[in-house]
Amino acid sequence: MTTGFEFTCTLPEWVHDHVDFDRPYPTAEDKMRVVLDLAMRNIAEQHGGPFGAAVFDDTTDRVIGPGVNLVIPSSNPTAHAEIVAIAVAGARLGQYDLGADGSRPTTLVASTEPCAMCLGATPWSGVSTLIVGARDEDARAIGFDEGSKPDDWVAYLEGRGIGVQLDVLRDEAADVLREYMRTGGEIYNATDTGEIPPDA
Amino acid sequence: MTTGFEFTCTLPEWVHDHVDFDRPYPTAEDKMRVVLDLAMRNIAEQHGGPFGAAVFDDTTDRVIGPGVNLVIPSSNPTAHAEIVAIAVAGARLGQYDLGADGSRPTTLVASTEPCAMCLGATPWSGVSTLIVGARDEDARAIGFDEGSKPDDWVAYLEGRGIGVQLDVLRDEAADVLREYMRTGGEIYNATDTGEIPPDA
Repeated sequence: MTTGFEFTCTLPEWVHDHVDFDRPYPTAEDKMRVVLDLAMRNIAEQHGGPFGAAVFDDTTDRVIGPGVNLVIPSSNPTAHAEIVAIAVAGARLGQYDLGADGSRPTTLVASTEPCAMCLGATPWSGVSTLIVGARDEDARAIGFDEGSKPDDWVAYLEGRGIGVQLDVLRDEAADVLREYMRTGGEIYNATDTGEIPPDA
Repeated sequence: MTTGFEFTCTLPEWVHDHVDFDRPYPTAEDKMRVVLDLAMRNIAEQHGGPFGAAVFDDTTDRVIGPGVNLVIPSSNPTAHAEIVAIAVAGARLGQYDLGADGSRPTTLVASTEPCAMCLGATPWSGVSTLIVGARDEDARAIGFDEGSKPDDWVAYLEGRGIGVQLDVLRDEAADVLREYMRTGGEIYNATDTGEIPPDA
């Protein structure tokens, strides 16, 4: 906390190696590849959890807010990839409601199914669509925790007007999680809350 | 986003008027008064939602991380009071696990029951205890939404080793919410997700 009364989450410069802010990423697979690339780079740089996310402008298909898991480098247990992507998008747009401009809906893309916190954040963000790669069970298989979510969280989001697309490049997304295990990535955790660390 | 790749949440200087970082706040009521003062000031300054929170060091009873709702001033839909308090505490301690030092457990105090996102964040933070003022229904009564939480979220947290204390100065806490309504505070919302805005 530099001034004593703030916190900052900073994305690494190598985000530029994987995100071209001037080009469109038209398909769900195009969008997923971007966040999987971010997740893989986060692993390779030993920069934190194996999770990537991004908010896209649905009209231009461009990236508004990229995100990777910044829990470890920012000493912030809430700095999951989705939270970072949403917050960066808000900061870039200068508005807390990413859907405030009705003519420009937005999509949140997550390399792994959002944990309870990030799922809770999704409706607050104003995005119209959530696209997901790996499933909860893929994350749990390598020891990450997702927290307590509604059993039918997809129906919950859809009931709030948010479209959900699952299993986009799921195999590749699960491979990213396994890569983290293979390379001995730190399994961060919160001491008092059990054996298993949070996802995303 | 100042550099294009970060976001910052900054607490207002007036936090100093309500938080004395050098004194202990021993009881649950002492702690709750601090966060209710922060919530009231946030209303008076028209600075955002009527919510305050803080992370306390259980050993010294001092404030580690104060928080108010910064959704509007920081253009960040995830900047609820609890998220801010947790993130500021992590930044001050330089660790993402607020319970990492086993000899210094921490407590999160929230002026209103955490929404789904903030509830999801609570186990990830490493706090040992959650103290709550107003209830969900108090927030819903003035039009705020809490999202979808486990029916027995208290048991869920307790099952993860987090103690929960409800209804601490609940009447005063509910009064804070009503004050927000009375003074015509902005009911921020996310466009695509229904009529009701997120809590906290």
